[in-house]
Amino acid sequence: MRTDSGGRGGSGSWGGGHDLRHHGDAEVRDDGSALVDLAVNVRAGTPPEWLRGRIAEALGGLAAYPDGRAARAAVAARHGLPVERVLLTAGAAEAFVLLARSLKVRHPVVVHPQFTEPEAALRDAGHTVDRVLLRPEEGFRLDPAAVPEDADLVVIGNPTNPTSVLHPAGSIAELACPGRTLVVDEAFMDAVPEEREALAGRTDLPGLVVLRSLTKTWGLAGLRIGYVLAAPETVVELERAQPLWPVSTPALAAAEACMTPEALAEQAVAALRVATDRAHLVAGLREFASDGVRVAEPAEGPFVLVSLPGAGAVRERLRRLGFAVRRGDTFPGLDGTWLRLAVRDRRTVNRFLQALDQALSLRGA
Amino acid sequence: MRTDSGGRGGSGSWGGGHDLRHHGDAEVRDDGSALVDLAVNVRAGTPPEWLRGRIAEALGGLAAYPDGRAARAAVAARHGLPVERVLLTAGAAEAFVLLARSLKVRHPVVVHPQFTEPEAALRDAGHTVDRVLLRPEEGFRLDPAAVPEDADLVVIGNPTNPTSVLHPAGSIAELACPGRTLVVDEAFMDAVPEEREALAGRTDLPGLVVLRSLTKTWGLAGLRIGYVLAAPETVVELERAQPLWPVSTPALAAAEACMTPEALAEQAVAALRVATDRAHLVAGLREFASDGVRVAEPAEGPFVLVSLPGAGAVRERLRRLGFAVRRGDTFPGLDGTWLRLAVRDRRTVNRFLQALDQALSLRGA
Repeated sequence: MRTDSGGRGGSGSWGGGHDLRHHGDAEVRDDGSALVDLAVNVRAGTPPEWLRGRIAEALGGLAAYPDGRAARAAVAARHGLPVERVLLTAGAAEAFVLLARSLKVRHPVVVHPQFTEPEAALRDAGHTVDRVLLRPEEGFRLDPAAVPEDADLVVIGNPTNPTSVLHPAGSIAELACPGRTLVVDEAFMDAVPEEREALAGRTDLPGLVVLRSLTKTWGLAGLRIGYVLAAPETVVELERAQPLWPVSTPALAAAEACMTPEALAEQAVAALRVATDRAHLVAGLREFASDGVRVAEPAEGPFVLVSLPGAGAVRERLRRLGFAVRRGDTFPGLDGTWLRLAVRDRRTVNRFLQALDQALSLRGA
Repeated sequence: MRTDSGGRGGSGSWGGGHDLRHHGDAEVRDDGSALVDLAVNVRAGTPPEWLRGRIAEALGGLAAYPDGRAARAAVAARHGLPVERVLLTAGAAEAFVLLARSLKVRHPVVVHPQFTEPEAALRDAGHTVDRVLLRPEEGFRLDPAAVPEDADLVVIGNPTNPTSVLHPAGSIAELACPGRTLVVDEAFMDAVPEEREALAGRTDLPGLVVLRSLTKTWGLAGLRIGYVLAAPETVVELERAQPLWPVSTPALAAAEACMTPEALAEQAVAALRVATDRAHLVAGLREFASDGVRVAEPAEGPFVLVSLPGAGAVRERLRRLGFAVRRGDTFPGLDGTWLRLAVRDRRTVNRFLQALDQALSLRGA
């Protein structure tokens, strides 16, 4: 339903010249569908067979309205929280809309560069959004003091898409204070070994709202499932803005299945694999330092952000060579010199590095 | 995620003593799960095997973000409309929230008795909702003149849940006028032979918004899929209030599958079957006239509304006898003398009528 240019046509989604509604999936649609995908941050080879089986089983119960209670309890148990602190959503994307529509907010601040949907949802709900821009020369690190004191809503990603920076939990916790809602988008935290720096499960920080997604690690982008962890009164407020039966039965089955100890063990293994594969990708990219290729480091997510001169032309050449990468210039705080690359297995990375070599040589030609 | 009492706890959902968030699915949960279900208006024996197969096939593409373009085009073609007039939603329930949240409305009016979710969504969005109550002694028929002239949003169901009244398309069309949004919930229209009195596909009525669901005829309550047919500018407005990727890939596959000529032919056969089975049920109920049982007639939907003295006690007795029926008293305009019965096959109806006989005799004891 979204076109490549963003689709909604809402002027509110164009923030300072950035198309906030451009997403990686647009890079692998239509003519891009035959490309090797380094544009979308979904783990390759997913969903695993056992998970697909659990979802398929749920199709037997489609005639009944969804009953989210078991999935909600499973999510709560996984994070050691009471069910009153859990809200299941149709992907993290729904959570952003619920937050934007239902919270009483006067001065929302989004920490960029980051996933653009929170700001787009806030603008579409009529808010004027303030930005804190983290700077490349500071490694996109968070300085809590840079966030305006009177901000009553702060949105930050951890690890951050697209910078792949993992902020220390302590730095983010400093942003929490009474009278402020602190939204931490942990959509990629399950790809970080031991979920280091996670705030999910914390109940001691005022106004903390943690968002989680099952999309990336489990390959469920098409199913629409995520969840919110927050104070019970916030959960009630967000739930009131949800449609009835917001999450489908197959998505509920998936959520429940992904909370078992076995699934969490598989997730942990996958996170370690990401770290290994990412190290290989980063080492390979460093070989192109003399071509002006710079990796934003340390990268801790399942993707890396790189800058290189003429990135736009390189991206086009990579497409012709069979590889889709994510443009960086639609993220506030980045310009046309940036590209985001999803971490893939060693073999795919090797092929990609060869293509990059070719694309960079062509540049000189 | 909803508890039996409605779950949201929003005071706004309690309209004049009616729990607007009570739905039939609550009657067949937990201790009710072993009951023969005449409470939920989903066609029995659904989804059909071929449709389940199509949905299962879609599970192969779950790792990719949903792409709604093909489904949207299929819905548009089925109704002879351009795609700009179609919005796919996560069930009709999402459409009610989108309408409530995004339309600029000063004087919304809901024609009752009807499905309570539109009013609940409007109240939750902060609107003060006016009601037009159709009266049992007038067969719950619509008098267009009863709708206040300055109403800028009018919501009506056709055929209407729970009264099973099918309003003439002409009567509803009289409600359309410039400066007013006229929402016609046709969630059950596909169960009416030849979709008599449908307004879907009409482009000549100002402000017309038609809602459709695939839930009931196709048994997809658990999948969350429906759609809105409206003027392009209304579609854009509603879409802006939607989360990104609002409809899941399996739901999109189902929508596309249900728009084929073969599916429409199957739907037509199912509608005729409903009419036959309903005639059997109504005839059986008429046998209880001396017990005070009255059917709201003519019933044209896949359910019938009946009144009988002591309906609450009869409903409890029916549960003990193994049958779940839908209480009527949560619908504005109805009181504790009403019950709603889903149309089932002849054999189930016969068993139900026997149970009703027993329940009514017990009443005398």
